[in-house]
Amino acid sequence: MNAPLPHHLLPEIHQRETPAALIDALKARFAERCSTALVVREQHGRDESSFAAPPPAAVVFAENTTDVADAVKLASQYQVPVIPFGVGTSLEGHLLAVQGGISIDVSRMNKVLSINAEDLTVTVQPGVTRKQLNEEVKSTGLFFPIDPGADATLGGMSATRASGTNAVRYGTMRENVLALEVVTATGEVIRTGTRAKKSSAGYDLTRLMVGSEGTLGVITEVTVKLYPLPEAISAAICSFPSIEAAVRTTIQVIQLGVPIARVELIDSNTVRMVNAHSKLGLREEPMLLMEFHGSPAGVKEQAETVQEIASDFGGQAFEWASTPEERTRLWTARHNAYFAAIQSRPGCRAISTDTCVPISRLADCLLESVTEADASGIPYFLVGHVGDGNFHFGYLIDPMLPKEREVAEALNHKLVQRALDLEGTCTGEHGVGLHKMDFLVTETGDGAVEMMRTIKRALDPKNIMNPGKIFTL
Amino acid sequence: MNAPLPHHLLPEIHQRETPAALIDALKARFAERCSTALVVREQHGRDESSFAAPPPAAVVFAENTTDVADAVKLASQYQVPVIPFGVGTSLEGHLLAVQGGISIDVSRMNKVLSINAEDLTVTVQPGVTRKQLNEEVKSTGLFFPIDPGADATLGGMSATRASGTNAVRYGTMRENVLALEVVTATGEVIRTGTRAKKSSAGYDLTRLMVGSEGTLGVITEVTVKLYPLPEAISAAICSFPSIEAAVRTTIQVIQLGVPIARVELIDSNTVRMVNAHSKLGLREEPMLLMEFHGSPAGVKEQAETVQEIASDFGGQAFEWASTPEERTRLWTARHNAYFAAIQSRPGCRAISTDTCVPISRLADCLLESVTEADASGIPYFLVGHVGDGNFHFGYLIDPMLPKEREVAEALNHKLVQRALDLEGTCTGEHGVGLHKMDFLVTETGDGAVEMMRTIKRALDPKNIMNPGKIFTL
Repeated sequence: MNAPLPHHLLPEIHQRETPAALIDALKARFAERCSTALVVREQHGRDESSFAAPPPAAVVFAENTTDVADAVKLASQYQVPVIPFGVGTSLEGHLLAVQGGISIDVSRMNKVLSINAEDLTVTVQPGVTRKQLNEEVKSTGLFFPIDPGADATLGGMSATRASGTNAVRYGTMRENVLALEVVTATGEVIRTGTRAKKSSAGYDLTRLMVGSEGTLGVITEVTVKLYPLPEAISAAICSFPSIEAAVRTTIQVIQLGVPIARVELIDSNTVRMVNAHSKLGLREEPMLLMEFHGSPAGVKEQAETVQEIASDFGGQAFEWASTPEERTRLWTARHNAYFAAIQSRPGCRAISTDTCVPISRLADCLLESVTEADASGIPYFLVGHVGDGNFHFGYLIDPMLPKEREVAEALNHKLVQRALDLEGTCTGEHGVGLHKMDFLVTETGDGAVEMMRTIKRALDPKNIMNPGKIFTL
Repeated sequence: MNAPLPHHLLPEIHQRETPAALIDALKARFAERCSTALVVREQHGRDESSFAAPPPAAVVFAENTTDVADAVKLASQYQVPVIPFGVGTSLEGHLLAVQGGISIDVSRMNKVLSINAEDLTVTVQPGVTRKQLNEEVKSTGLFFPIDPGADATLGGMSATRASGTNAVRYGTMRENVLALEVVTATGEVIRTGTRAKKSSAGYDLTRLMVGSEGTLGVITEVTVKLYPLPEAISAAICSFPSIEAAVRTTIQVIQLGVPIARVELIDSNTVRMVNAHSKLGLREEPMLLMEFHGSPAGVKEQAETVQEIASDFGGQAFEWASTPEERTRLWTARHNAYFAAIQSRPGCRAISTDTCVPISRLADCLLESVTEADASGIPYFLVGHVGDGNFHFGYLIDPMLPKEREVAEALNHKLVQRALDLEGTCTGEHGVGLHKMDFLVTETGDGAVEMMRTIKRALDPKNIMNPGKIFTL
């Protein structure tokens, strides 16, 4: 969607040769399910990030675990990189073939394998998307809460440790993946856990794989937790005289332990964009978009507490989305904020930030960054999973004006440094990918990154699993 | 407390030599804080398991991270094992010097370093115990919920991925550790995370270390989540006509998504032992011991739902522990069930089981095992964190009668196999240690265990970090 970044801005483009013999072997094994058509390769060589790299040499459409294992074995034999591909919604360049190699498309592995409603678990193939999953489990009265904006796959969401608007109550992929099936760098198939709710059985390979961005293996099955659909759900919006008032309301709600299901900040600027894009008439002021889950009495109690806090900070009376349709419309508008913003400045490209800080530091982190962004003159959108201390600026730059990119990157740099100084992280939910390698070192220190590299070298000695992401070797 | 198991029952006793030069170097560095007194070494060479091994060659009393790092560096130089020691409450032989080496006692590293009440986090040294922590944060209105029976240290609880009675609502150490400071096998100090609530910044080293049982590094700082003390807490006991009725009540409570804080099963046998030990007059029938946390209205609502379900299964009316003192007395009795059981058969030793299965399989797993245990004639206790599908049999054997040990091990073996067949795990919360290595392979498969070994070899090439636990190399 965005115009691509010039190659020279990428941390590493050293495309390895893909031998013709590998392509021949893949074609022999997969027939028409191995494509070398340029249009197919190009489609698999990009994602929602603003980076660009030459496309992969081939795309294999896997239909089951054995397909994935065989493709990896062949790639290993020829020491050629392997990049898993779901539906291409990464924001950080995870899917780019920066070192060449082949893309393994798992989008056809899209079956829900077993719903264990009585255990609140479900096992799916990696190409199942979050919306598909919720559609398929609907009749059980259960739902899967993790919702990154895009309709991403469960495989990709696991690989990037994704979260979204419900994480404040239900946690992230870190807390919600129970077990994985993974094809390792040698093409072996392993299982990383059971369906038991807890376990102390050896190293936590599940959580080592969750967030490893395809660099340690290809995820071929995912078992996640489900939750009973709440007896009652209410959504409300509340406008505030300032971003600060909205943020301070959020901090107090969290500190009081109110089990709010969603609490999203949208600044007045972004409300305007959302109104234009989704044909809504929201008051164009900083707002919190909230949702409460529980029993009817519990929801009422939560909402009353939050209303009281909000009004202390000058919040307007809540406006309730009383029907499920109204609620869906509101949340769809929220999830489309990114697209709304992009459309607000034709031809622009968004540079997204993803810092996350301890809740008490949220105001310090956010407000100074708003001041800096306003002063820069670059248009931006601002949305946030503020209950988790996580928010996203999207600086809307004109790709034809290098100065704007420079200013935006400088703003991002300052923001990340501020978040780290406040004991936060450079990435709450998008992952490191190509864009945050230096930030990762600043955040965790050389020692921790070197430990990650040591694990990578041990589990993938040929460096074929999505190489050049998270760190370079 | 238990008579030790003969050495030949242990999976591996190959004590490496500890060179006199290392002891000299440790004495030069730590003076009287390095002890070679037999009584000190023996105290550090055992735990609450029934295993025995020759004691470590020396014990270093560390007072800070630099002490730990220096001790590890010296041990590394001489290729001698290092075993971290907190307060010695492991049930699985984690603290035994099966390959010789030195014990690093961190119990003097017992400071609460920083309470961030407004972020619901606290950072502590590894020797802080869970009761000490709760005492020190009391004035903030927050608490730390994880409660293995013993008053274990936060370092040890992290290392074994511990949980306890509150896990059904608050999760285990897996969900509650935010970040660690760790001394690696080379004596380097790393940090594995920040205080942000969520992060996608690279491999999840925190969760790799949590549950690694000292085999990848020594934990020197732990940052965990805290929770607001609930506005209302009620505890109740409910007696049932059968274990099955109690278990089926639990299953339904969990499946309905009632956010119960604790739901513990105690069989009639164990109630009798607890009554004798704790001078209580509990009805000697299978019972559930429950606790509800929330707002006054929320607690009432939860309790009503559970009472309704219980009465469907023939449960007696709830008996409420209305004062905090009564509640503490009840939970202390529950936590002392292990000791009560041991005392019920003077001179006996307990062989503990720790299986955990998906909640829908709980009745299948538990009831058959009760039938088998009853048929064996071996006395036993039975307690369970049944809301998580986790329970413990303790077979109370006479160590002078080898036949009894044989029967108990056979019962355990059948139980574990049953749990694995039901998609569960051999250990819900105690860890693998020395006793469950074979079960681990059966549970996860050779491939996953080999991946763990590969990580171990890469991060600890000299195999000095608590070697011989979880797996042998």
